[in-house]
Amino acid sequence: MADQLHSMCPKFEAAFEILGKRWTGLIIRVLLQGPCRFKDISEMIPGMSDRMLAERFKELEAAGLISRHVYPETPVRIEYELTEKGKALRPVMDEVQQWGETWV
Amino acid sequence: MADQLHSMCPKFEAAFEILGKRWTGLIIRVLLQGPCRFKDISEMIPGMSDRMLAERFKELEAAGLISRHVYPETPVRIEYELTEKGKALRPVMDEVQQWGETWV
Repeated sequence: MADQLHSMCPKFEAAFEILGKRWTGLIIRVLLQGPCRFKDISEMIPGMSDRMLAERFKELEAAGLISRHVYPETPVRIEYELTEKGKALRPVMDEVQQWGETWV
Repeated sequence: MADQLHSMCPKFEAAFEILGKRWTGLIIRVLLQGPCRFKDISEMIPGMSDRMLAERFKELEAAGLISRHVYPETPVRIEYELTEKGKALRPVMDEVQQWGETWV
């Protein structure tokens, strides 16, 4: 048990460390609806500055949770999408939401 | 959707803020097995100092996730137990564990 706990510890913390940052859970929840442009998300979360969103996008990309697609149109279109790793967070988000609604 | 997102935002963040702290997830996972004395948990998580554990216990108690029971024996026995709010985190912990095992 102690060994099992220990081996999970860094993974647990890594997961919560990403998800625990301000706005991150919200950004992931918006992206769970489908790919979005920067402006789409920015408008859906009015309290969050564009600078903050750009920072979160970078972190989420570095964590392998989102990918960035550039479509060479005029004007250029850039979309952000959850990777498989990011999409796999849906059950986590659902359970946290349910817990939050009942208990927070 | 935007309204719904917004109303959930503080609850999401509150949940992740608690769970995202170092050792907290691990402490909750140990307590999901049943009530424990300070020393039991301390021994199960050798990398964590007693001072840190005491701090986390205080935070978790303040968040309403654990309760502290004092049994007036000789020597006095003190046990920590998850509250209903704390026990309700089991599905969250399970989903995060599953995600972590697959993706982290």
